[in-house]
Amino acid sequence: MNFSELGKFFDEHDNYLILTHKNPDGDTLGCGFALCSYLREIGKKVNVVNNDNFPARYDFLYEGYEPLDIEYETVIAVDIADTQLLGDGLSEYAKEGCIDLCIDHHISNKFYAKQTYLDGEASAACLVLYEFLKSCNANISNHVAKCLYTGIATDTGCFKFENTTPKAHMAAAELMTYDIDFARINRLMFDIKSQGRLAVEQAVLSNIEYYSDGQCAMIVLTKELMESCGVEEAEFDGLASMPLQIAGVRIGITVKQRDTDVFKLSVRTAEGVDACEFCAYFNGGGHIRAAGCEIVGSLEDVKAKVIAHVEKTLEH
Amino acid sequence: MNFSELGKFFDEHDNYLILTHKNPDGDTLGCGFALCSYLREIGKKVNVVNNDNFPARYDFLYEGYEPLDIEYETVIAVDIADTQLLGDGLSEYAKEGCIDLCIDHHISNKFYAKQTYLDGEASAACLVLYEFLKSCNANISNHVAKCLYTGIATDTGCFKFENTTPKAHMAAAELMTYDIDFARINRLMFDIKSQGRLAVEQAVLSNIEYYSDGQCAMIVLTKELMESCGVEEAEFDGLASMPLQIAGVRIGITVKQRDTDVFKLSVRTAEGVDACEFCAYFNGGGHIRAAGCEIVGSLEDVKAKVIAHVEKTLEH
Repeated sequence: MNFSELGKFFDEHDNYLILTHKNPDGDTLGCGFALCSYLREIGKKVNVVNNDNFPARYDFLYEGYEPLDIEYETVIAVDIADTQLLGDGLSEYAKEGCIDLCIDHHISNKFYAKQTYLDGEASAACLVLYEFLKSCNANISNHVAKCLYTGIATDTGCFKFENTTPKAHMAAAELMTYDIDFARINRLMFDIKSQGRLAVEQAVLSNIEYYSDGQCAMIVLTKELMESCGVEEAEFDGLASMPLQIAGVRIGITVKQRDTDVFKLSVRTAEGVDACEFCAYFNGGGHIRAAGCEIVGSLEDVKAKVIAHVEKTLEH
Repeated sequence: MNFSELGKFFDEHDNYLILTHKNPDGDTLGCGFALCSYLREIGKKVNVVNNDNFPARYDFLYEGYEPLDIEYETVIAVDIADTQLLGDGLSEYAKEGCIDLCIDHHISNKFYAKQTYLDGEASAACLVLYEFLKSCNANISNHVAKCLYTGIATDTGCFKFENTTPKAHMAAAELMTYDIDFARINRLMFDIKSQGRLAVEQAVLSNIEYYSDGQCAMIVLTKELMESCGVEEAEFDGLASMPLQIAGVRIGITVKQRDTDVFKLSVRTAEGVDACEFCAYFNGGGHIRAAGCEIVGSLEDVKAKVIAHVEKTLEH
């Protein structure tokens, strides 16, 4: 599918339902609501849905949004590589033939939709949509600009990560000229933390363990520790990147207790250490810089096994 | 001064000393070493100096740099708004007539140099230098690109802050096409923390106090607490922004003990609260979102006074 075919698709269809992925982030929501705004502006009837409703954190993306009364004829999935990511609440759309169009940037896309516009090199689904809108000289409203900027910024860690491209910067350069308070968006997305999250980070920081002369840092999240924080489970998301952010650390390990004697390891590594290989030793897998595995045993046994394997790995 | 005059300046001078500001950051060092590289490439003799030597944190900016034996004829200050920022070690250059050229982006620039190229709207001194190099079609080496990218990224908080401009994004889009590992630079600049800094953050997080239904968060750094962390003083820099990063907080206050009964307040505020007005009550001052003051008294007295004024301020 190319952009002109995508434009033709929008011309020829109406009564849209836009699906966004579960545990929604700025990119799936930004892309969903930008597309919704754009299609409504050109006279179409459109709604957006999510398995987990719309989190308060992204309120500014759906200010003024009201679902319409629509008999859906066209279903679009945005930023969804696989129908499993729809979530239980939207699993009815996982059946073959239910989704008419998918707009995505994940090279792992499963091509489950009848038609797919995929740019596996784009930093964000929002960047794909931005480039489509530019290709057809579409009017970009302030709201669409705000949604697109948010998706590009959040998926690139505010232009920090390896997946940032010159095109992502070029898009940001234009989108910030609209009436969007990009600095406020970035504060909300990257700086503001809940009191609960701070309690979690405090608990984690006070329990970091160092091994192999500080080349390995380990966080252990026991059920007891997690309960003592008294916060929602979601506040524990994204901690796995913390140990590797410590100067000198080459293997960062987060050990999360799943059950009395079951522990889930999330391993992150710096250049020169293969996280996937590390986890394969414990029958896990993943990527070269981020991998995981599950180990059964008492916490003491699990830690002893992991530390021994850390030492062996760092010897090489 | 315009770019063509700046180009003429470089043509007509040689035997350069480039001054960078004390407590150096990525922008002053990036601009200093980019300019040094560029001028050396066009056949000039150039050195760079700093009051505080060159911190290990920015090693990648001076890989391979060796000071030359030069009898200086031309002194350039980069990213330095005021000669006070040279530091004691370079104070000899603070005398009138010592600095031939200043390249800067601070609107507060004091015009202490014989000639000044100032762009008060540029996000970074590195962006000013980038635009000069583009204006004269200069060859940009990988090392120059790395230095310029670093300055632009660090001064904008990785394109997060209000001072980010479309031009900053456009420059980044081009500079990242050079052989620079921008993701690694960003990791080093924004993610990696020393064990000492983590200890400080942990101490701070475990001592946050909330007032006015969580609309005010206060960090108290007593001498005792700071000593208990056993880290260098520099590890306490930049903590003042932390309290305002907590969801719901509108006034963030950092109280730092200077002496037994002397406390320095750093106040940061969200929209709708004037930090300068808040601090003026205690004979301090600053800007609308960031201000400071000093209060004399026991810690208990100081806190009581501050909390009372917080409540009065938030009532309005």
